[in-house]
Amino acid sequence: MSHSCVILYKSGRDKEARELFESVRKHLKVIDVQELSCQRVEKACDFALVVGGDGTVLRAVKCVSVPIVGFKAGRIGFLTAYRVEEAERFLEDLRNGNLVREDRWMLKVTVDQKEYEAVNDVILRAKAKPMSEFRVFIDGCSDLDFFADGILVSTPTGSTAYNLSLGGAIVIPSCDVVQVMPVAPYYLQNRSIVLPATKIIRISSQLESELVIDGVCVGTTREILVNKSDKTFSLLRPAGYDFFSVLKSKVGYGRSVNES
Amino acid sequence: MSHSCVILYKSGRDKEARELFESVRKHLKVIDVQELSCQRVEKACDFALVVGGDGTVLRAVKCVSVPIVGFKAGRIGFLTAYRVEEAERFLEDLRNGNLVREDRWMLKVTVDQKEYEAVNDVILRAKAKPMSEFRVFIDGCSDLDFFADGILVSTPTGSTAYNLSLGGAIVIPSCDVVQVMPVAPYYLQNRSIVLPATKIIRISSQLESELVIDGVCVGTTREILVNKSDKTFSLLRPAGYDFFSVLKSKVGYGRSVNES
Repeated sequence: MSHSCVILYKSGRDKEARELFESVRKHLKVIDVQELSCQRVEKACDFALVVGGDGTVLRAVKCVSVPIVGFKAGRIGFLTAYRVEEAERFLEDLRNGNLVREDRWMLKVTVDQKEYEAVNDVILRAKAKPMSEFRVFIDGCSDLDFFADGILVSTPTGSTAYNLSLGGAIVIPSCDVVQVMPVAPYYLQNRSIVLPATKIIRISSQLESELVIDGVCVGTTREILVNKSDKTFSLLRPAGYDFFSVLKSKVGYGRSVNES
Repeated sequence: MSHSCVILYKSGRDKEARELFESVRKHLKVIDVQELSCQRVEKACDFALVVGGDGTVLRAVKCVSVPIVGFKAGRIGFLTAYRVEEAERFLEDLRNGNLVREDRWMLKVTVDQKEYEAVNDVILRAKAKPMSEFRVFIDGCSDLDFFADGILVSTPTGSTAYNLSLGGAIVIPSCDVVQVMPVAPYYLQNRSIVLPATKIIRISSQLESELVIDGVCVGTTREILVNKSDKTFSLLRPAGYDFFSVLKSKVGYGRSVNES
C-alpha cells in the first residue's frame, strides 16, 4: 500500500506545490493540496510535504501532527530536506528506506493560565519604551538582571534563527540545552547563557512587554515561565542530511577561504 | 574520627595557608601543608584544601585524586568555595553535613599516542605565523574550516575562562556539552558551536601548531582528537553555592543596573 500525504504550501508557492503534486501523485496518495494558514490540518495521512522555507516548516509544525518533509525553493535550509525540484530523489529515498525521522523538542511558555509551544524561540520584549529591566530566574539560583530590549530563549532548532542575529552560539540539534540571550542589552552583557533543557526559566519585566512566540506577537504580559515541552515534532530527511553543510551554505560559518 | 586533609597553596600564599592550618588543625587531621607544584600529591586523605584562585584549583585537580575545597584570597571564584578567612564557616558546614560534592568532567586530548586531560580547555594555536587554516571534523559531518589564530574547545567549567574572552557562551556546569570556538577568525566567524559532549572532535591545522592544555603549552602538532574523558574531579562546596551569584560578582554578567 502506498503512503498518504498532504501537500501544504506557502502563499505564492502554488506553482511549486502543483509541480510537486504532479511529481508524486503516481507514487503517493495525496489527500489534499492546500495553502498553509493558521488552521490545524486534521486529515489522516502519513506525512506532510511542505513547500516553502524554514519559516513555512515552522508554521506547519503547529498545523499538523504527522512528520514533515520540507521542500525548499532554492538552497535547502535547517528544517527543509529537499529542493522543490528534487521530488524524484525524495521518492527514491522513500522507496529505499533512506528517510530518517528526526524528533525535535519544543519550549512550553506559560503566561497566567495560558500555554504556548515554541519551535524556535520565545521573546519577552519591551513594548512602549524600547528598553526595560528584565530579570531571569533559574530554579533556586539568584536572578540575573538585564537592562535590554528583551530576553530571548531559544531551542537548539532556534539557535540558528534570531539567536544567531543577536550573537548567540550555534547549538547542534541533538543537544539537550536551551540558550538565554538578552536582546540589545545596555551593560555590555551581549552573551548568551546555556542551560540544561530541564530547567524552569522565569522571566519578568518591569514594564508591560510583548510576548513573541516564533516571531509572532501573541499578547502582552510582565512575566512568563519557559520550560521544555513534552511535545515534539518530526522531520523526515534523507539519511545523509548534514547540519554543518547547511550551516556553511546558509550562513557561511566554517566555509573555507578557498570557496567563495 | 576526624577527617584528614592536605593543604596545598599557591606560590606566595604561604601566610594564608599557615592561617588556614591554624584554623583547622584542631578539627581536622592535617597530613601536610605544601606549596603546589606539578608533582602528584599521593598522600592518603579525605580532601585537599587548596589556597589560591580558580587557576590554583585548576592545577590542583591534576595533582590530587581527592575532592577539593578551594579557599580564595578575595572574592570567591568559579572553582573556589570559601574565602580564606572563612575557615570557621567551612568547619561548621563540614560538621553539619552542609557540604555538597560536585563532580565535573574533563576533556581527553589525544595527540599521536599521547593523552592529556583538560579541565577548562584545549587550544590548537598557530605557532610560527599568527594564523593558519584549521579544519574541525565532528563525527560523520562535513568539516568546518576557519582561517584563524587557533581553535578552542572548552568544557562547561572552562566556558567562563578563556572562552569568555573570545566571545563564547556561558555554559552552566551541569550541561553535558562542549563548545568549539575559533580564536581570532578572519572571516567574521567569531561564534561558537555547542555540541553534545559525546562527540569526537578532530582538529587539524595546515601549519605546525602549539597544543595548549589549560593554558599550558605542552608541545606542537598538526592534529588533535578531543572527546569527553572518563576522568572526573570533585569540588566540595557549601550547599548554597550559587553559580549565578559568582557570575555576577566576577564578570558582572546579569548584574543589576542599580548595583555598582
